[in-house]
Amino acid sequence: MAPPPSSEIPNGESNGVHVSNSELARVGNCRVECNPVLSQQKISIRGVVDELLKLANPEKGLVSLGVGDAASSRCFQKGKERFSEAVADAVSSSAFDCYAPSYGFPFARRAVAEYLSRDTKHGIREGDVYLTVGGTQALHVCLTVLASPGANLLLPRPGFAPYETACEIYGIEARYYHLQPHWGWELNLDQVRSLADANTVGIVIINPSNPCGAVFSPFHLQQIAETARDLNIPVIADELYGHMVFGDSKFVPLASFAHLTPVITIGALSKRWMVPGWRLGWIAICDPHETFKQVKVAIEMLMNVTSGPASVIQAAVPGILSNSHEEFHKNVLTVLESSAETLYTRIVHIEALKCHSRPQGSMFMMVEINPALLLGIENDMDFARELIKEESLLVLPGFVIGLKNWVRIFFGVPSDLLSEACDRIESFCKRRRPTN
Amino acid sequence: MAPPPSSEIPNGESNGVHVSNSELARVGNCRVECNPVLSQQKISIRGVVDELLKLANPEKGLVSLGVGDAASSRCFQKGKERFSEAVADAVSSSAFDCYAPSYGFPFARRAVAEYLSRDTKHGIREGDVYLTVGGTQALHVCLTVLASPGANLLLPRPGFAPYETACEIYGIEARYYHLQPHWGWELNLDQVRSLADANTVGIVIINPSNPCGAVFSPFHLQQIAETARDLNIPVIADELYGHMVFGDSKFVPLASFAHLTPVITIGALSKRWMVPGWRLGWIAICDPHETFKQVKVAIEMLMNVTSGPASVIQAAVPGILSNSHEEFHKNVLTVLESSAETLYTRIVHIEALKCHSRPQGSMFMMVEINPALLLGIENDMDFARELIKEESLLVLPGFVIGLKNWVRIFFGVPSDLLSEACDRIESFCKRRRPTN
Repeated sequence: MAPPPSSEIPNGESNGVHVSNSELARVGNCRVECNPVLSQQKISIRGVVDELLKLANPEKGLVSLGVGDAASSRCFQKGKERFSEAVADAVSSSAFDCYAPSYGFPFARRAVAEYLSRDTKHGIREGDVYLTVGGTQALHVCLTVLASPGANLLLPRPGFAPYETACEIYGIEARYYHLQPHWGWELNLDQVRSLADANTVGIVIINPSNPCGAVFSPFHLQQIAETARDLNIPVIADELYGHMVFGDSKFVPLASFAHLTPVITIGALSKRWMVPGWRLGWIAICDPHETFKQVKVAIEMLMNVTSGPASVIQAAVPGILSNSHEEFHKNVLTVLESSAETLYTRIVHIEALKCHSRPQGSMFMMVEINPALLLGIENDMDFARELIKEESLLVLPGFVIGLKNWVRIFFGVPSDLLSEACDRIESFCKRRRPTN
Repeated sequence: MAPPPSSEIPNGESNGVHVSNSELARVGNCRVECNPVLSQQKISIRGVVDELLKLANPEKGLVSLGVGDAASSRCFQKGKERFSEAVADAVSSSAFDCYAPSYGFPFARRAVAEYLSRDTKHGIREGDVYLTVGGTQALHVCLTVLASPGANLLLPRPGFAPYETACEIYGIEARYYHLQPHWGWELNLDQVRSLADANTVGIVIINPSNPCGAVFSPFHLQQIAETARDLNIPVIADELYGHMVFGDSKFVPLASFAHLTPVITIGALSKRWMVPGWRLGWIAICDPHETFKQVKVAIEMLMNVTSGPASVIQAAVPGILSNSHEEFHKNVLTVLESSAETLYTRIVHIEALKCHSRPQGSMFMMVEINPALLLGIENDMDFARELIKEESLLVLPGFVIGLKNWVRIFFGVPSDLLSEACDRIESFCKRRRPTN
């Protein structure tokens, strides 16, 4: 049967419904209430950074050490063009315009599995890997899956703010363990044990550490895995900065200890390959005793109804993860080590600031501020606000990531820019020095 | 202070913690319970399709009319290379390796706003548009934001299964209104009114219709908007197949009626530009009376902590949405119209099948099956299962999308392939014809 004839909008009455094309038509009073979790102001890194950026001194060029995006720095480009070529080839082939399978193309999942298996004795297989829209979707998938009623999750403080927000969205109680600045930012495992109970669904470990720049030793990682085993919980290993270590440090994946308890590894191309805008991440389940199958089933159910990363980026994954980009990685680490050293040695000479340990990895350092030695500065937000107002230098106030009166400084920039930034911090602190 | 010396894994006792590198170490008994919503088997299009594909007759080449991915069809490639060139340029420039802003690059949001504004008198501005990881993330963002406690949402039946699953995940009650096959798949607005109550947060309208192939007239769209206005709810306008109409049909965006009630438009490059794998979609809020601001705030809060589409794809959006691809679009519509006609005229001659109206748009047609005229077939799943087992032809059983004893047939393939598919359906139905 044909549809009723209604191809034009009439004015007047029709079918018992008053219709009018005029702007004077009765206006609705849409009264929809939103998700209460999203109706309250959330503190987010992006939100605070955007607020601070508006305050920059217009007379000085902006130096941003507030967020972790080194992708555009010229100093990291050496050898990087080959990643772009791999994507451009996939785009030009038109073979990857189509939908990818829910968990990613098998060849791309296999490439991630092989990459991760290089460093652990527990082999990770194609079926253990799920491709995600950057590390961010990976953490959202993990937390959605673990969100049983009454669940709580152990998170580091300082840490990465999106975990906290995701917990709120999915109704998980966040419980914070404190990283210890005087102990190379290691965990106090007694505190971890005291936080956990029968409703604890996991512990998030960020290693190499954003925001602390620490790299945990194999011994400490084993202690963590043993503690998780004793608590009967999995470890969620956020290894976004995996392999981005320098000096004497060595990166050991937490999956190496998966014989003790299941390890859910989160990774991405964003940091190590410096293409955060490509939005390609992964979840890998390392569970040699297969005690954790129901989590894989739940991940698969969720990923069957959510969006994955772009097919054309997935297509380039095997080439990007191959062993043939040593020059690129070596250059990145050389620059990072030099920048970290510059930042550390300059900061330790500023009286109002304190840095408890040299960064060993990632692209961040935590710096403690002493408001008693800074006139007109009462806390980390004051420090960040006045610093950008006077010096056009952006750093992240620590309250955003759970550590008041600290700031997080990004050092993934060329050494000379970091010197310039340190000059500005030094001038700022000098001007603010109490007179007596 | 330096971290404790712990660079190697010792065997034995240390720090009061028993450590062992042996596989014989005590194994944990990880007892984490998953999100109960994800612990129950969900019916998903992908799940059912994967199950059916395993049954294909190995002696016949597979013809898949089960899912809506026309990207790889040769018949739709004419003029499409320019979309790929736009992305390849962005990749090669290395200017889009960095993070995009949370809601998308301003220039890309502006391009979507201008594109959508072409067809409505209510201008859509850059700030009204949020870029998403395909249409799928767009629907997840909308439903997350609308998920207040006790909320219910009006969904079409037959419809698009991911809405139903997303409702379950976010704790929204799905209430179904029935599209009427005898009335060109229009809504019964009295039924819509009877379903709604004070906790109804919106009505989802899919136009052009997946899965029905219907295109609503401006009159019917206005009726829908008026009904929503009377109920004080917004319309979520799923326009993934926007402009994919043929014959005498005209696509009118629901945003044209946003003076009556706020309209949240969901769109994507996936269908009209045939690049679903690029995962680029959008949400556009059309709310000329600005009664709906809190929804934008909530969307922004959510998008500040979730992943958006790849920067390199965003970079290509202005070029792709420009007016200069008429040849591509014209060719697509010519092929679709011809394929729809082939499918319709063949199906109406098969006794056991019934199609109530010619498809006017999208890439789908709903076909009613009459089990009384098909030996050994009791329902739509039987039909789909036996059809692929015997004929290697995949169609989607209607129960997945809320309509038992119907099947959804995808016609976004060349006409000759569709003829071949119709031959197979005809043979299948003939063989199953009752003898008396």
